[in-house]
Amino acid sequence: MALITFMSDFGTVDHYVAAVKAAIVSELPSQPITDITHDIRPFDISHAANVLRSVYKDFPGKTVHIVAVDAMREKSRALAIELEGHLFVGFDSGIFSLISDKKPDTIAVLENGQSTFPAKDVLAKTALQLANGKSLKDVGTVVNEMTELFARQLKVTKREIAGHVVSVDHYGNLITNINRTEFEKILEINGAGVRYVIRFGREQFQGLHSYFSDVESGDCFVLFNSNGQLQIGINKGNASELLGLSTDSPVLIEFTTN
Amino acid sequence: MALITFMSDFGTVDHYVAAVKAAIVSELPSQPITDITHDIRPFDISHAANVLRSVYKDFPGKTVHIVAVDAMREKSRALAIELEGHLFVGFDSGIFSLISDKKPDTIAVLENGQSTFPAKDVLAKTALQLANGKSLKDVGTVVNEMTELFARQLKVTKREIAGHVVSVDHYGNLITNINRTEFEKILEINGAGVRYVIRFGREQFQGLHSYFSDVESGDCFVLFNSNGQLQIGINKGNASELLGLSTDSPVLIEFTTN
Amino acid sequence: MALITFMSDFGTVDHYVAAVKAAIVSELPSQPITDITHDIRPFDISHAANVLRSVYKDFPGKTVHIVAVDAMREKSRALAIELEGHLFVGFDSGIFSLISDKKPDTIAVLENGQSTFPAKDVLAKTALQLANGKSLKDVGTVVNEMTELFARQLKVTKREIAGHVVSVDHYGNLITNINRTEFEKILEINGAGVRYVIRFGREQFQGLHSYFSDVESGDCFVLFNSNGQLQIGINKGNASELLGLSTDSPVLIEFTTN
Repeated sequence: MALITFMSDFGTVDHYVAAVKAAIVSELPSQPITDITHDIRPFDISHAANVLRSVYKDFPGKTVHIVAVDAMREKSRALAIELEGHLFVGFDSGIFSLISDKKPDTIAVLENGQSTFPAKDVLAKTALQLANGKSLKDVGTVVNEMTELFARQLKVTKREIAGHVVSVDHYGNLITNINRTEFEKILEINGAGVRYVIRFGREQFQGLHSYFSDVESGDCFVLFNSNGQLQIGINKGNASELLGLSTDSPVLIEFTTN
Repeated sequence: MALITFMSDFGTVDHYVAAVKAAIVSELPSQPITDITHDIRPFDISHAANVLRSVYKDFPGKTVHIVAVDAMREKSRALAIELEGHLFVGFDSGIFSLISDKKPDTIAVLENGQSTFPAKDVLAKTALQLANGKSLKDVGTVVNEMTELFARQLKVTKREIAGHVVSVDHYGNLITNINRTEFEKILEINGAGVRYVIRFGREQFQGLHSYFSDVESGDCFVLFNSNGQLQIGINKGNASELLGLSTDSPVLIEFTTN
Repeated sequence: MALITFMSDFGTVDHYVAAVKAAIVSELPSQPITDITHDIRPFDISHAANVLRSVYKDFPGKTVHIVAVDAMREKSRALAIELEGHLFVGFDSGIFSLISDKKPDTIAVLENGQSTFPAKDVLAKTALQLANGKSLKDVGTVVNEMTELFARQLKVTKREIAGHVVSVDHYGNLITNINRTEFEKILEINGAGVRYVIRFGREQFQGLHSYFSDVESGDCFVLFNSNGQLQIGINKGNASELLGLSTDSPVLIEFTTN
């Protein structure tokens, strides 16, 4: 029996989260379910994709992730997909194209029936089957394509990486789409003697910090976080509010050599 | 060992939720507990009853539901009741008269002792006993009556169903007390050639939708939800805010025949 | 296998809570984890200490409590401590000096490595080891001291107990640092014929209530709560808002004899 995780934009004031869990535990009381969060902003595919992308690989392979976000999307089909050794059930909103740079190994369309609550009637039941040994082709019809969305891409040259803020966390930290791998590649291309400056808002930094605690309370830090994303924050402060930056704000790294 | 569910108006910033769970897992670490929600508005019996009524039957029969809402109500007794094959522990605030159209099979008054935290000291311990095979008469004194509250009733004639909004969900959907069974009964009474118009706020609709996605983003839908309640919403919008309607707003269905 | 509890100031809109749980269940899927709360106000050691102090003893001895609050504190070390038969993992922010009047039996410093997410990389893994039989000296280096913070103390004389509000709960109840033991000791010292008056804001009471429900809706009550702390509230009302009192507001008990 594999683990099931559950994320949604259902919030916590209604019965929706409990109804989905009830559909699972009614069938198999011992099935473990771990909540990711139910506070995804309503209909916000991008928020959901950022959270899921940041955490799904921390769970064991074969974990089944229920992604009940924007469940009422027009013309959406329910899907089950296999991607990087993990299984996902959700809606064909494009979200699954945003959680990994890889393509799914398998995509299956699930039978929706007549449900007005497909997270409970379709996703929960399919997740339970997948967690207990069924394969994608047992639970749906295998297809070749799903909806794909395209995140704004990094612009990368030898002289510049131009990215932007993709999310703001609970503390006001600014998470960007600039990743450590890309950064180190450009450093290497420039070779010995390279210097760089990181620019965002009215700030500029000529180096990176290793830890939040490398700066005093109230000061700004810039580092690669544990997911390898460039992150801007203020020690014990809310960087988004204090710097006036938010989702989509540009962040540049300029490289120079002598 | 049956499942225990747990709902409360305790919120999430204090130790109250954890203290109740601790009382259970200290006695029986393997006891499964599923949270319904702890974000019931403080003291709001109606909110709690709507959530509980919408979900309890999704759990297996014999599930024990801890309902720690308005726990400090004056003169309240702690009760355990059996209703439609489910067990409930909570306070005699009238909430249990609002979660079903049926009467309880059994009502037992629990010994409150001297506790200022009866959800922990009385409800948790009783729930654990009930989940593990004790009967109502083992845990309390069987009585014939509990406090009854009366929800505002539908007014139903051959020409009109007059109901109202009973709750507003996380997305701003308006949930009404008009149910599919009543609606279909009136349709049948009117017979062939019947037409109907649904009125609320400044809107009127001459038919029902089947799915949220039957309308475009920003448009209004009216359908019977998965619990059989008439529900008004706006696809990807907040119907309560956009239509200016909330709890207690009237909703009418008028029937005409030629 | 002992129970693990988990509290943090991570909030619920990011992946942080799930990432810590994933680190545990990836190693041991059957490990039970009970959330205390993740809504500790960011960086608020005092809020966290009040919640933890109020609930940890309700869990069985040997429970391991993950305290991921103010995780980015400057120069903080990760610690594991044993205190009153419970185990705690967290940061050396001083929080562990505020949760008990007793000193820890053992303090161990954990190897932090190079992590920018030590709650996941250090606390979760250590908690799992401790819950499964390792001792403090197996997981870290035993030391003699940790950071100590000093809560504002009660001033106690034969004529007066001078305390203050230490926290405001979800309902607006005012929780003070005046405890029942101290109060009863002063009563006894004064002996027969003692009277007392409790003063806070513009209110004064010449006795204590036993239950919230001893007063009518809208009226003020003063009682010792289930943790033995003097608590001021308003039945079905928000005492903090209605009395204009909050954290640090003074509360006095004056004793007189004839």
